[in-house]
Amino acid sequence: MEFKISKELIQEVKELIEVKNDHKLEVILNDIHHADIAEILDELDFDDATYIFKVLDSDKTAEILLELEDDLRENILSRLSPKEIAEELDELETNDAADIIAELSQEIKAEVISELQDVEHAKDIVDLLRYKEDTAGGIMHKELVKVNENWNVLTCVKEMRIQAENISRVHSIYVVDDEDRLKGRLSLKDLLTTSTKTAISDVYIRKLNYVNVDAEDVEVARIMQKYDLEAIPVVDELGRLVGRITIDDIVDVIKDEADQDYQLAAGISQDVEADDSIMELTKARLPWLVLALLGGFITVRVLGLFEGAMLEHGNLFFFTPLIAAMAGNVGVQSSAIIVQGLANDTLSGSLFNRLIKEVSLSLLNGIILASILFVGSHFFLDVEMVIGLIVTIALVSVIVIASLIGTFIPLLLDKFGIDPALATGPFITTSNDICGILIYFSIAKMILGF
Amino acid sequence: MEFKISKELIQEVKELIEVKNDHKLEVILNDIHHADIAEILDELDFDDATYIFKVLDSDKTAEILLELEDDLRENILSRLSPKEIAEELDELETNDAADIIAELSQEIKAEVISELQDVEHAKDIVDLLRYKEDTAGGIMHKELVKVNENWNVLTCVKEMRIQAENISRVHSIYVVDDEDRLKGRLSLKDLLTTSTKTAISDVYIRKLNYVNVDAEDVEVARIMQKYDLEAIPVVDELGRLVGRITIDDIVDVIKDEADQDYQLAAGISQDVEADDSIMELTKARLPWLVLALLGGFITVRVLGLFEGAMLEHGNLFFFTPLIAAMAGNVGVQSSAIIVQGLANDTLSGSLFNRLIKEVSLSLLNGIILASILFVGSHFFLDVEMVIGLIVTIALVSVIVIASLIGTFIPLLLDKFGIDPALATGPFITTSNDICGILIYFSIAKMILGF
Repeated sequence: MEFKISKELIQEVKELIEVKNDHKLEVILNDIHHADIAEILDELDFDDATYIFKVLDSDKTAEILLELEDDLRENILSRLSPKEIAEELDELETNDAADIIAELSQEIKAEVISELQDVEHAKDIVDLLRYKEDTAGGIMHKELVKVNENWNVLTCVKEMRIQAENISRVHSIYVVDDEDRLKGRLSLKDLLTTSTKTAISDVYIRKLNYVNVDAEDVEVARIMQKYDLEAIPVVDELGRLVGRITIDDIVDVIKDEADQDYQLAAGISQDVEADDSIMELTKARLPWLVLALLGGFITVRVLGLFEGAMLEHGNLFFFTPLIAAMAGNVGVQSSAIIVQGLANDTLSGSLFNRLIKEVSLSLLNGIILASILFVGSHFFLDVEMVIGLIVTIALVSVIVIASLIGTFIPLLLDKFGIDPALATGPFITTSNDICGILIYFSIAKMILGF
Repeated sequence: MEFKISKELIQEVKELIEVKNDHKLEVILNDIHHADIAEILDELDFDDATYIFKVLDSDKTAEILLELEDDLRENILSRLSPKEIAEELDELETNDAADIIAELSQEIKAEVISELQDVEHAKDIVDLLRYKEDTAGGIMHKELVKVNENWNVLTCVKEMRIQAENISRVHSIYVVDDEDRLKGRLSLKDLLTTSTKTAISDVYIRKLNYVNVDAEDVEVARIMQKYDLEAIPVVDELGRLVGRITIDDIVDVIKDEADQDYQLAAGISQDVEADDSIMELTKARLPWLVLALLGGFITVRVLGLFEGAMLEHGNLFFFTPLIAAMAGNVGVQSSAIIVQGLANDTLSGSLFNRLIKEVSLSLLNGIILASILFVGSHFFLDVEMVIGLIVTIALVSVIVIASLIGTFIPLLLDKFGIDPALATGPFITTSNDICGILIYFSIAKMILGF
């Protein structure tokens, strides 16, 4: 069950903008979820989108702002005054507000902050701005419910009602001491079932998961998934409760991480989307292509070494793309499996066992493929038996070597603290191309003696 | 802050198993989170792991069971009697229990079900078994809190306390009519702040998101992410409330989907892990390799067409792996960007605009790369000027064609309802190898006239 944006609706909205029928616009749009309005705005031009933005209330537009595509958001923000931007931010949760401020230029940033009305909220936002994006501090928010361990349940419920007013999802009530140090948690369910005079210190749960404010976001994601948590408190160096991370923040981290590994495997070095500008796409795509081109230079030189074979055994050269392609494909498969294993923390066993396994696996695959090649070279490719034999032997060797390179380069990178996903895609295919061709012609040279 | 398994702990556990000190084992392990115990069991042999399983209480072992690696779980279950398995399942949430039953063999399945003690629970589990794995029905659970629209808040709170006993996370209270049809929802916070005599029909929220039991799991994931939901109710064809899906179920769907796209891009056709058996890994890896090999046959034939060039312009053949590699890399980049755009629903604009953009982008990239190649071929690769010119022109053409193939094949597949991710990895590299080589030698033939 999902709202579908119809062409008629878009048309109606456009017409209402044209005749400036603000009242009707408001009536129609107030009934639509902010995520859907964001999609409607994506279909309009910048002027119309900004118009709608000014018609609607800031509690609605603030939420819409978060859902917009980056370039549309940037454009709309550039048409709002610092005061108007501050009005939007006053409506948002601290981490969302901080994310938007971080996108603003340095001079506007200061102006917007000075225009924020709610001083406590402003303090929290400024506080969040100093954490790095990919840390617990960078994804946490300040909204949480906390109670003092010295209170009783009655005080706690009263306080909680006040605090919970601005929080969409409570999950857990955190218990702190007088110094704000995290001591434990209370569940909402517990509160509903405990007598009001009970002291909090008698009922709260002392054992709880938490993360340090400097922890990496992917580490937080791993812990929350492992222990199946919907929210996790964040503490500073002194153990003081400074924020909270909820599972919906983590969904984005997990998705971004998976997308990033995929992009690296495809030879894309930055987070880009199909709708980004040509310049941005080029910046993301060119580096790995240049690397692959330089690798290509080496293959040219390597083939040059075997020029002597051209006269008598020219058709050896017909097989170079086949050998290179198989080396590349096998290498990418092996590296992808290792990179996912490292990312999901599912690799076990010793390096030696992995070596034995990878060799057996690639021998099995190699022999099956080489048999197909041997038969094919005879009946379909029409080459002399000896050439068929050479490419067959070469294919098995190349597959074994390529799968070892694909397996151990990511493991090595990981050991040195480098993202193993770098060793997928163009890097692996290029190095395997070079090795594969070298092995193939070396075997040919040994057998044919050119 | 995470529990780390030490070698000493593993050693201690092993020794306690050997001397059969069940009491001490229980004392140590009861203090450790079930997800961590699962990791400890992974380090033990099957016998020891099963031993621990029989020592601990079923409320703990049931949770451990869910966290185990597939092969260890299968092994442990095979050592338990149907009655023992049923005891584990009695402790689990309905969807987790149904997932485990689905893994059992047909004959044991029936026995296990007949041994389940809690009849209501058993009914729910059997009910879940009939839904397909990748639908809302396949990932939902039966645990939820629902109240009748005709009750008042007091009855509702009482009922809710009873129902909530078995539910770890309440999120929302669903409101149904006498026929069990979903009417709306109540928030826990609302209940805390409304007078007890109020009728439910006066306070519940009528607008809510829900999904049909047949909806695809990825679609549910998309809706929950879009509307930022922590739980969504599931209804049957008659609008009756049959289950609920929470965000932690969706995290798995999102992760699996991303992993699967990544594996397809790497030429792996099934969901495998590095620690799977050689047979499983071969089954996942061989199909695309065979396809790539057959594609390789075609490149051999294509090169054979241009044999005539070998005598005078043999060094043309040195460049085939370079051209093929660049075609493959560009194609993979383009297809990955489109596949992600389709998956994240961020593609906009007409096909014609996309064509113009892709051509401009690849021309820009192609010209930069071709310039490097032209200079390199002169100073580093040592070939005649005319050969340098040919590979330069060929590279630009090949990059443009490869990026068009990479862009439009996934779009085409998507149009026909085929997973566009199939058109990444080996499929794209292989077809681009063939096209690239054909274009390169055709240009050479035109210029050199062999």
